[in-house]
Amino acid sequence: MSPKITTELLKQLRQAMKSPKYVQEPVQAYIVPSGDAHQSEYIAPCDCRRAFISGFDGSAGTAIVTEQHAAMWTDGRYFLQAAHQMDNNWTLMKMGLKDTPTQEDWLVSVLPEGSKVGVDPFIIPSDQWKRMSKALKSAGHDLVPVKENLIDTIWTDCPQRPCKPLITLDLSYTGVSWRDKIIALRSKMAERKVLWFVVTALDEVAWLFNLRGSDVEYNPVFFAYAVIGMNTIRLFIDGDRVMDPAVREHLQLDSNLEPEFKIQVVPYGSILTELQAVGTGLSPKEKVWLSDKASYALTEAVPKAYRYLTPYTPICIAKAVKNASETDGMRRAHIKDAVALCELFNWLEKEVVPKGTVTEIIAADKAEEFRSQQKDFVELSFATISSTGPNGAIIHYKPVPETNRTLSVNEIYLLDSGAQYKDGTTDVTRTMHFGTPSAYEKECFTYVLKGHIAVSAAIFPNGTKGHLLDSFARSALWDCGLDYLHGTGHGVGSFLNVHEGPCGISYKTFADEPLEAGMIVSDEPGYYEDGSFGIRIENVVLVIPAETKYNFKNRGSLTFEPLTLVPIQTKMIDVNLLTQEECNWVNDYHQKCREVIGAELERQGRHEALQWLVRETEPLKVQ
Amino acid sequence: MSPKITTELLKQLRQAMKSPKYVQEPVQAYIVPSGDAHQSEYIAPCDCRRAFISGFDGSAGTAIVTEQHAAMWTDGRYFLQAAHQMDNNWTLMKMGLKDTPTQEDWLVSVLPEGSKVGVDPFIIPSDQWKRMSKALKSAGHDLVPVKENLIDTIWTDCPQRPCKPLITLDLSYTGVSWRDKIIALRSKMAERKVLWFVVTALDEVAWLFNLRGSDVEYNPVFFAYAVIGMNTIRLFIDGDRVMDPAVREHLQLDSNLEPEFKIQVVPYGSILTELQAVGTGLSPKEKVWLSDKASYALTEAVPKAYRYLTPYTPICIAKAVKNASETDGMRRAHIKDAVALCELFNWLEKEVVPKGTVTEIIAADKAEEFRSQQKDFVELSFATISSTGPNGAIIHYKPVPETNRTLSVNEIYLLDSGAQYKDGTTDVTRTMHFGTPSAYEKECFTYVLKGHIAVSAAIFPNGTKGHLLDSFARSALWDCGLDYLHGTGHGVGSFLNVHEGPCGISYKTFADEPLEAGMIVSDEPGYYEDGSFGIRIENVVLVIPAETKYNFKNRGSLTFEPLTLVPIQTKMIDVNLLTQEECNWVNDYHQKCREVIGAELERQGRHEALQWLVRETEPLKVQ
Repeated sequence: MSPKITTELLKQLRQAMKSPKYVQEPVQAYIVPSGDAHQSEYIAPCDCRRAFISGFDGSAGTAIVTEQHAAMWTDGRYFLQAAHQMDNNWTLMKMGLKDTPTQEDWLVSVLPEGSKVGVDPFIIPSDQWKRMSKALKSAGHDLVPVKENLIDTIWTDCPQRPCKPLITLDLSYTGVSWRDKIIALRSKMAERKVLWFVVTALDEVAWLFNLRGSDVEYNPVFFAYAVIGMNTIRLFIDGDRVMDPAVREHLQLDSNLEPEFKIQVVPYGSILTELQAVGTGLSPKEKVWLSDKASYALTEAVPKAYRYLTPYTPICIAKAVKNASETDGMRRAHIKDAVALCELFNWLEKEVVPKGTVTEIIAADKAEEFRSQQKDFVELSFATISSTGPNGAIIHYKPVPETNRTLSVNEIYLLDSGAQYKDGTTDVTRTMHFGTPSAYEKECFTYVLKGHIAVSAAIFPNGTKGHLLDSFARSALWDCGLDYLHGTGHGVGSFLNVHEGPCGISYKTFADEPLEAGMIVSDEPGYYEDGSFGIRIENVVLVIPAETKYNFKNRGSLTFEPLTLVPIQTKMIDVNLLTQEECNWVNDYHQKCREVIGAELERQGRHEALQWLVRETEPLKVQ
Repeated sequence: MSPKITTELLKQLRQAMKSPKYVQEPVQAYIVPSGDAHQSEYIAPCDCRRAFISGFDGSAGTAIVTEQHAAMWTDGRYFLQAAHQMDNNWTLMKMGLKDTPTQEDWLVSVLPEGSKVGVDPFIIPSDQWKRMSKALKSAGHDLVPVKENLIDTIWTDCPQRPCKPLITLDLSYTGVSWRDKIIALRSKMAERKVLWFVVTALDEVAWLFNLRGSDVEYNPVFFAYAVIGMNTIRLFIDGDRVMDPAVREHLQLDSNLEPEFKIQVVPYGSILTELQAVGTGLSPKEKVWLSDKASYALTEAVPKAYRYLTPYTPICIAKAVKNASETDGMRRAHIKDAVALCELFNWLEKEVVPKGTVTEIIAADKAEEFRSQQKDFVELSFATISSTGPNGAIIHYKPVPETNRTLSVNEIYLLDSGAQYKDGTTDVTRTMHFGTPSAYEKECFTYVLKGHIAVSAAIFPNGTKGHLLDSFARSALWDCGLDYLHGTGHGVGSFLNVHEGPCGISYKTFADEPLEAGMIVSDEPGYYEDGSFGIRIENVVLVIPAETKYNFKNRGSLTFEPLTLVPIQTKMIDVNLLTQEECNWVNDYHQKCREVIGAELERQGRHEALQWLVRETEPLKVQ
C-alpha cells in the first residue's frame, strides 16, 4: 500500500474554499464526513469523498482541511491502514486515545479568530451539526453550510451516482403490501399528531415500497427519498427505473387508485425544494416527522417549530419486527446459506489439509461461489472476513493481496460471511481448525461458545432491551479474565442491510428499542489474541415467545431461535468446560443442523457435503 | 389515613400567585417539587412543602397548582398512598401509565395562552428547569423563577431549618484529611481548566470537610454549601456550630494556615450573592464547575459562558471510592450490625413462634434497640422496612399503625434495615420464615438467592459499569418467568447517605460510572407476589480486585466481597435448585459469618445469639 499523493488536490480544495463561485465568504476550514446523504453505513463510490481527498478508504473517518492543515479522525480499527494510505500532508487523529483532540477542540486550537467552517449540509446529520455548531459558536467561530460539495468540484473523474434497475418484491416475500405499510405509517403519524413523514434512510424507502436495488454494494437499496403525507405519497427517485413495467405495475402507477395511495414520482434532486414547499405551507400544530439523523439540509428545510425528530422512525421500528413471510424467507435463506458453507468447509478440509494451497482470498471466493449456486442469490451481504492465524485477531479484517495468508493445519481459520438472497439476508461466523488445536485455543473457543449459548438460550421478559443480555455472552470469558472489545449482536434486515437498528446486543448503552418476537439479531461473541488468532461464533437468531413456568405474570417470555444452522466445530470444544445443559444445547443444535440442512443437501444431491455434515454433527460425549 | 383538607391552603396559594408582594406579574401555575436546595433524597421537615400543600408525604411527587386545578405526579409506589392522603381538590397523575400526561403536556393543555408558570429557582435542578422551560416556551408560555417560595409564605407553622451540632471525624475514620481532599479536588479542577468548584450536595460538603451532622433524618449531613477556588475555601453554614472548639480545631479556623487552606465561614444564605460576585469577576476561559443537578438559581448565578456542568462532580466520584480506613470502618460497622440482627432474629424466633405477639412495628423497634447497643451507633440509615405476608410485596413499605401486621408462623417476614455508625453505614435485607415455608415460597427464595450469588460472585474487568451486572441477578428468575421491578443495587456511603452515586447495579441505563476497587454497592434482588409475600436478599458488598487466570491482559479483574455477614435462612432454600458452586458459596459465606460474627458475639457475651448463629450457619447438604 503506497499513500495517495494529495498535495495538488488539497491545493485545489483550498482554492475552492475561497472561491466566490462556491462560497459567499471564504471558509477557513472544510469538513469532509464519511457518509452519504442518507446516513448509510455502506456508501456508493461517488460518495467516497473522504477517501478521494485523503487516500484513506476505511469505513469510518472524518477529514478536516484548513488553510494550513489536513487532519483525519478515525478509530483504533484503522490507525494502521490510515497511516499507510495517507501522505504526509495529513495528520492522523487517533480517536479513543487520551491526548487526541476532538474535531471541535482541534478546530478551535488552529483557526484564526472568527473563522467560518464549511460543510456539505446534505452529508452532515442534523444532530452532529447541532453539536459541532454549538462548540464552534462558543469559541467565536461559525459552522456554515456550503451548498455545492467542494470535493465534487475538484473530483473530475467522480463516478456517476448509481441508478441500477429495481427489484420488486411480491407479498410472498414481504407479507405486507406497500399500501398496508403506508396505512400503518399514517396511523403512527396520527398517533403522534404529525402530518408529514420524511423517509431519508435508503433501507427505509426500500422496505416501505417493497422494492430493492443495487446502487450500493452489499446493501440492496437504491437512491431515493420519500415524503408521506396523510393524503399524498411522493417518491423521489431518478432514472428511467420507474418506467420498467414491472415497477409501474408494482407501484400501481398507472392504476386508478384512491388519491391517498397515488404515488407521485419526483426527481431525486428535488427533495429539498419540495420539502421547503411543505414547510412553508404548514400552520401551527402541523408537524413534520424526521429522523434526528437526517441531514442538516433536509432538517433545516422544515421550520424548527414544525419539526418532530426522533432517534428511530416508525418505519425503522416496524421494519425490525419481521412478519411470518419474512421469517419464513429468512429461514429459507439460512438453509441455503448453510448448504453453501457445508460445501465450503468440506472443500477446505480436502484442500487445506493435504495441499496447503488455499489462501484467505481463495477461500472467500470459494464461499461466494458456493453461495451463488443457491436459488435467489443476489450478492454478498458484506465483504467476507476470511482470516487465518494472526489475521483473525483483526476484527474487521478483509483479505487483500498484501496481507493474504495461506490456510494451514497449524492455524485457526475464522470465516465471517453472509449473503443477500431474495428471501433473506445471512451473516454467519465459524472458527475452524484443520489440524490439532492447542489446549489454550480450545479453552478460549469453549468460553466463547458458552457465551454464545448463554445468549441464544436466554429467557427474558417481553420488553427487555438487548443490551441487558450482553453480559451473558461475556460471563464465561470474564470468569477467567478474558473479554472481547465489540458488541455481541446487531439487528439484521430481511433482504436488506445486514446491520440495522433499532435493536442489538451491546455493552454500549445506546438507545436500543426493547426486543420483541419477530426481531432478528446476531449473537456473536468472540475472543482475539493479538498476533495469534481470532475466535468468533456467530448465528443469526430470531426472537420468539418462550414457555416459562410462570410467564412473568402474563407479561410474556421471550427467547431466541437460531436461524443459522451450520455446525460448530466440535474439535475446538473442550467438553470438560461445558455444563450438561450446554452439552445438550450443542447436541440439539447439531441434531437440527443435521435434519434440516441434511435434508436440503440430500435434495440438492450434495452427497459429499452431506457426509461432512453428518460427521460434524456427531453428538458431544462428556469425558 | 384521612386526607388533608387543602381548600383553604390552595386558596391562599392562589392569592400568593397573584400577589405583587411575591411576583412581578401573576403566575397562572406554580410548581412545588419534592426536593430541597441540595437535590437531597431525604429532606428536612421544613423542606416538605409538597407534603404541606397536598397532604401527600411519599418520597417522590411533584405538585402543580393552577387557578383551576391542583395536580400531583407520583409513581406506582405511591398511587394508593397519594389517593388516601389527598382530598378531592387534587387530581392524581399516575406516572408510568400510558394515558398520564407529562407535567409539561398537562400545563400546555390547561393554561390560557401566554401563561407564566412559577417555580422556586432554589428547588428546581437546572437540568429540569431547562427541559420544562423549553417545552413551555415552544407552546407560548414562560417558566419564571419566583424568588420567595410561595408555600413558605402561607406555611405559618413551618418548622425551623435544623441547625444541629456537627460531628468531626478524625483520620482514623476518614483516612484522608480535608486538606488533602481539597488538594486532590484542586488538581481535578486544574485538569479540567476550571477555577472554581461549587459544592451543592449535602453529602459532598460533609465528605469534603470530614464533618457530619444530623439536620436530615437518616442522613448524617448538615445544611451547607462550599465554594472552592484555587486559593480560597468558602464554607456557607449557619448557626454557632462552627463556634464549637472541636469544630474550630478540626477546620483549623484559628491556626496560622497558608492562605489557600484558610476556610472562610460565610452565612448559608449568602451563597447566591457570593456566587454572583464570583461570576461577575470572571474573565474568558475561567470556568465554574457545578453539578448539572445544582439548583437553577445557583447555576444562573454563573454566566452561561463560564459554566462547566457535569452529571457527577469530582467529589461524588472520589467519595465513592473508599480508602482503607473507610473500608475498615465499614467492615467494623457491618460486624456490629450483624450482632444486632443475630440478637433480633434469635429474639423473634423465641417470641413469634410460641407467643404471636410481635408486630412489624415492635420488630422494627427491637431491631433499632439492638443496633443502638452497639458502639458508635448514631441513628438508623433509613426507615426500617419491617413487613410480613402481603405487606412484604410493597417494596417501599414502612409499618404504620393502620397497616401493622403481626408476625406469624404462617407468613414470610421481610426486614430491610440499616444504621449509621460513626465508622460506617449499613443496609441489609433478610427474608425469614418462622414456620414452614411452602414449596413455592422456597422456590422463589432460591431463585432470588441464585441471583444474589450471581452478582456477588461475578468476576468482571476493571472499568465495567454496574448496569452490565444487573441481568446476572435476574437470570435464574427469568428462566422460570419471574422478575422484580427494581434495580439490583445502589452505592452506599461511608457514615453518609445510604443511597449515593455515581455507581449502582440497575437495568435502567443511567450514566453510572465504572466500578472500581473500593466502591461499595448493595446487591439486593427480590421477588414480590402481590397480596402474598415479598422476598429480598440484600448484602452490602465491596468491589475488590479478583484473581483470574488471564487477568484481562493486565486490565485487571474485579469482584465483590460481602461486607454484610448475616446468615441467609437455609430453611428457605430449595437445595435441589442450587448448583454445587452455589452451595459452596452459601457454605463459605456462612462459615465466614460464623467465624467473624461468632467471635464478636462471644466477645460481647451474647451467648444465646451465638447459639442461634451457629444453628443458622450449618452447612447446606445436597439431598
